[in-house]
Amino acid sequence: MKMSLKYYYDLLSQPSRALHIIFRLSGLQFEECPVALRNGEHLTDEFKQNINRFQRVPCINDNGYKLAESVAILRYLSAKGKVPEHLYPKYFVDQARVDEFLEWQHITLRVTCAMYFRTIWLDPLLTGRSPSASKIETLRLHMERTLDIVEEVWLAQSEFLTGPTLTVADVFAACEIEQTRMADYDVRIKYPKIRAWLKRVRAACNPHYDVAHQFVYKISGTGPQAKL
Amino acid sequence: MKMSLKYYYDLLSQPSRALHIIFRLSGLQFEECPVALRNGEHLTDEFKQNINRFQRVPCINDNGYKLAESVAILRYLSAKGKVPEHLYPKYFVDQARVDEFLEWQHITLRVTCAMYFRTIWLDPLLTGRSPSASKIETLRLHMERTLDIVEEVWLAQSEFLTGPTLTVADVFAACEIEQTRMADYDVRIKYPKIRAWLKRVRAACNPHYDVAHQFVYKISGTGPQAKL
Repeated sequence: MKMSLKYYYDLLSQPSRALHIIFRLSGLQFEECPVALRNGEHLTDEFKQNINRFQRVPCINDNGYKLAESVAILRYLSAKGKVPEHLYPKYFVDQARVDEFLEWQHITLRVTCAMYFRTIWLDPLLTGRSPSASKIETLRLHMERTLDIVEEVWLAQSEFLTGPTLTVADVFAACEIEQTRMADYDVRIKYPKIRAWLKRVRAACNPHYDVAHQFVYKISGTGPQAKL
Repeated sequence: MKMSLKYYYDLLSQPSRALHIIFRLSGLQFEECPVALRNGEHLTDEFKQNINRFQRVPCINDNGYKLAESVAILRYLSAKGKVPEHLYPKYFVDQARVDEFLEWQHITLRVTCAMYFRTIWLDPLLTGRSPSASKIETLRLHMERTLDIVEEVWLAQSEFLTGPTLTVADVFAACEIEQTRMADYDVRIKYPKIRAWLKRVRAACNPHYDVAHQFVYKISGTGPQAKL
C-alpha cells in the first residue's frame, strides 16, 4: 500500500492557504483534498468521524494519523524532515524565533483580520444584513492596532518577519492579511513596510502564492499588484 | 558570570500561571521577576527596550536571549532539556498531539474565557461601567460553545486532554478556565467532565497549582474546592 499524506483544505481559509504554499514550496508530495466550507462539507457527521473531530480545515491524514491545527501540522511535518530548514529552522534557538511569531499571531493578527473579513464580507453574504459603520470602525481599529505592531515591531529591522529571509512565519502572516482584501481593505495604503514585505513574500513564494490566492484575487476583484 | 533564566510574569495572567506551574513541576531553576500589570509596569519604555518589545507577559531572558509567547517559551525550554518528557513529549508524533491542543486553544478557549473575564471583571474595574446583560449573555454563549468542545471532544475518551496523563496542555487549559472564577463563572455546574478533570489537574500539579492561583482564589473569594 502506498504511503500517503492527505491534505484537507479550502483556499478561502487563511491557514489552509499558508500550508498549501508551504507544502508546495517544500516539494512535498500530498493528495489534494479540497473541502468546500461554503457548502458545509465540514459539517457532516462523516467529516467529524473520519476527517477532523473539530470540523475545521486545514487538517491532514498522514497514512492514518489524523492531525488538525495548521501550526501543529507544520511542526509535525518538519520533524518528519518534510519541510526545508530555511523555511522552518531545526536549531531550537532559531526555531523559537519563528515559533514566537506563530504563537503571537493567533489572538492578534489572525483574530482581528478574520473578524474584519467575516463581519464585513462573510456575514452580510450569509444573513443579508450589513454591519453598522461604527461596528466596522471598531473592527478596523482593532485590526490596525495589530498591523501597527507588524509594521513597527516585526518589520522594524529586517526584510522578513523573523530575519533576513522568508520563513513560514511570513507565509502565515501574509495569508491572514490578504484575507482582508475581500472586505475591500487595502493594507498597503497606511503601511509602507507591510506593502514592500508583501511583495517580497509573494516573490519568494510564487508561483505557489498566486495559486493559493486565486479565489481571493477573484472575489476581491484585485490582482496581486492592484491598487485601490 | 552565573547563567540565569529570568522569568517575567503576573499571576493574574493565565499563560503566566501556566508557565509558573510548569517550571516548578519541572524543577527548573529560574529567577522570579513579577510584573504588576495592574500598575502598568509593562507599559514603560524601559520594559519595551529591555524586557519584551511586545510589552506583555509572560516572557523570559535566558542569559541574554529574550523570548516572548508562552508556547514558544515552553518549546524552547523543552528543546534545552529543561521540561520533562512526560509533560511535553519529545517524540514528534506524541508532541504533535499536545501541539494540536496548544494551537487549538488560542482563538477558542483562550479568547472566549479571557473576553468573559475582561468584560465582566476587569473593564468595570477600570471604567466604572458594567456591561449590559445581553453583552454578558453573548460572551457566555461564545465561551460555552468552546467549553462544550472541551467537555465533549477533548475529554471524550481520556482522563486528561491529550491522553491518560497530565501534559502541559492540561496546565494551559486549566489556567484559562480558572480565570473565569474571578468573573463569578463556575464551570463546574454545567460541565461534569471538566469539573472532574480540573480536580485531577490540580492534584497532579499541587502545591504549585495553588501557589499560582493564590490571587485568583483570593479575588474570586473561592477556595479551590468552593462551590457556588
